[in-house]
Amino acid sequence: MGSRKGTLLSVRSDIKVLDVTIRDGGLCNNFEFSDEFVSELYKTNVQSGVDYMEFGYKASRNMFKESDFGKWKFCKEEDIRAIVGDNPSNMKIAVMADVGRCDYKTDFLPKSESVIDMVRVACYVHQIPAAIEMIEHFHELGYETTCNIMAISQVGSEQIIQALEMLSETNVDVIYLVDSFGSLYPENASELAKTYVDIAEKHGKIVGFHAHNNQNLAFANTIETLSYGVSYLDASVQGMGRGAGNCAMELLLGFLKNPKYNMYHLLVFIEKYMLALKENGVIWGYDIPYMFTGLLNQHPRSAMEFVANNEHSYSEFYKKLLDHD
Amino acid sequence: MGSRKGTLLSVRSDIKVLDVTIRDGGLCNNFEFSDEFVSELYKTNVQSGVDYMEFGYKASRNMFKESDFGKWKFCKEEDIRAIVGDNPSNMKIAVMADVGRCDYKTDFLPKSESVIDMVRVACYVHQIPAAIEMIEHFHELGYETTCNIMAISQVGSEQIIQALEMLSETNVDVIYLVDSFGSLYPENASELAKTYVDIAEKHGKIVGFHAHNNQNLAFANTIETLSYGVSYLDASVQGMGRGAGNCAMELLLGFLKNPKYNMYHLLVFIEKYMLALKENGVIWGYDIPYMFTGLLNQHPRSAMEFVANNEHSYSEFYKKLLDHD
Repeated sequence: MGSRKGTLLSVRSDIKVLDVTIRDGGLCNNFEFSDEFVSELYKTNVQSGVDYMEFGYKASRNMFKESDFGKWKFCKEEDIRAIVGDNPSNMKIAVMADVGRCDYKTDFLPKSESVIDMVRVACYVHQIPAAIEMIEHFHELGYETTCNIMAISQVGSEQIIQALEMLSETNVDVIYLVDSFGSLYPENASELAKTYVDIAEKHGKIVGFHAHNNQNLAFANTIETLSYGVSYLDASVQGMGRGAGNCAMELLLGFLKNPKYNMYHLLVFIEKYMLALKENGVIWGYDIPYMFTGLLNQHPRSAMEFVANNEHSYSEFYKKLLDHD
Repeated sequence: MGSRKGTLLSVRSDIKVLDVTIRDGGLCNNFEFSDEFVSELYKTNVQSGVDYMEFGYKASRNMFKESDFGKWKFCKEEDIRAIVGDNPSNMKIAVMADVGRCDYKTDFLPKSESVIDMVRVACYVHQIPAAIEMIEHFHELGYETTCNIMAISQVGSEQIIQALEMLSETNVDVIYLVDSFGSLYPENASELAKTYVDIAEKHGKIVGFHAHNNQNLAFANTIETLSYGVSYLDASVQGMGRGAGNCAMELLLGFLKNPKYNMYHLLVFIEKYMLALKENGVIWGYDIPYMFTGLLNQHPRSAMEFVANNEHSYSEFYKKLLDHD
């Protein structure tokens, strides 16, 4: 197991780039993107050769009040269509559905009536059976599906293998390795990728990778896992995403050798829309407090609070994180 | 050749951490650090377990006017002693000497009379013979020596091997792999590291790595090359260094498992001194224009100018960089 696939100069036709800017980035601004922003990002992604664009969550309107969030927390069919029409492009549309936080039996049309192409089911490892039930439902409706097992850096390897084998018996298309806490180093990210790819390949499944940038390794881990056979790569414009953010799309498109990927339009989008977002006070990206939680393999919520409060007492914060009961 | 040395949890006793904040960071502020800054950094490095601290360049006072630069461009013996006294710590003191830009025959005392422990000779590959002459001179004076072959990403592999073999026949202690343009990916950085380590080990030499962060890979490349047997690791506080900067010391100390390394004092230093530096307008660190020059394997000077001018027309800048004659 585990030699590198392809070379640094070759094109791998299995590679798919998935833009998570609105979905993971939405966690930075409560999903309150202007229609112009989302519409221009859609056009930019199409021009850049991006393969999938994730529009947000399909969150339960019974559990979350619509008025508390921007519309991309819910991704109603009519809201997506207001941006993409019937999506005449080659780019596919994805949404995310969290186990336990969506009404999947009522909120999804059959694929034949929807502009959505792919549903990504996010779960923790103990929710795999619930995720499988959802995956099979979405598969029957006609959607492509992924399973994104989160917080994998806190899961033992036996449990990971068990989860991968369970998923391999389902109709899921893509199994995602998700470094929720940004705590993986290239060395263990690529070892995990090999484990995922080994099991997935035996069952005709594909593997994806979703990085977080807590230790400034999101891009590095993405191209390392890619080199060991991961095919679906999540990225966001300027790495916009929760806390330290994700793999930056511009770095990833710069790396990929397939001439279908093109960075120019993305740069124009960054100039016009991303700089304004930052100026308006939306915060994300590598910062020392996120390094701490990544290093300690913890959820970044304490670091997000520290950054939001514009605190700089790094040494005190670090001491506090090392406290144990 | 080329298996990983050690594991992610083990201590490698060959590892040495070298702080380049004043030397490479000095390229961001014309070496104009306050004495308090340098003195506190010295104490912080000692407390953090850092193995070497580089104080700056030993530049020729015949070629460069002293009044045009801060004192760490010249690293006079009395200036270093004003900070460290006789350096009663276990940490060693390094300075850099550029081939062709220093008066090495007149500006260095015998080691027995100097507080400097190590001279790092920086050269381009075509200057290897000149570097060797300097190395042998410094060796005779009693110093530890390194040879830092710069801009290696523009050198063919046959020439690299020839340079490594020439250096292996000398009295140099450490041979540095230097990613001057930040254009290496972990995959080719580690391949180069294997080549360096293979040749160096045969001759009892040690290998070091100096990263630049143009593609946000400085830390990733440092720990990847380390895992393949590189021992001397350059880093700077918050990655301070020319353009996109270097590997961040806090990330590196967080990664290393040897209990002699301790991040706490470094965090206090960052709070007190680094934030003020940034507030005063000193600029470094990953930014999109540096990604372009890294990607295109070019010197970052055009990107440095773009950033210094506070420009944001990324798409136009990128188009210009792709121009050829």
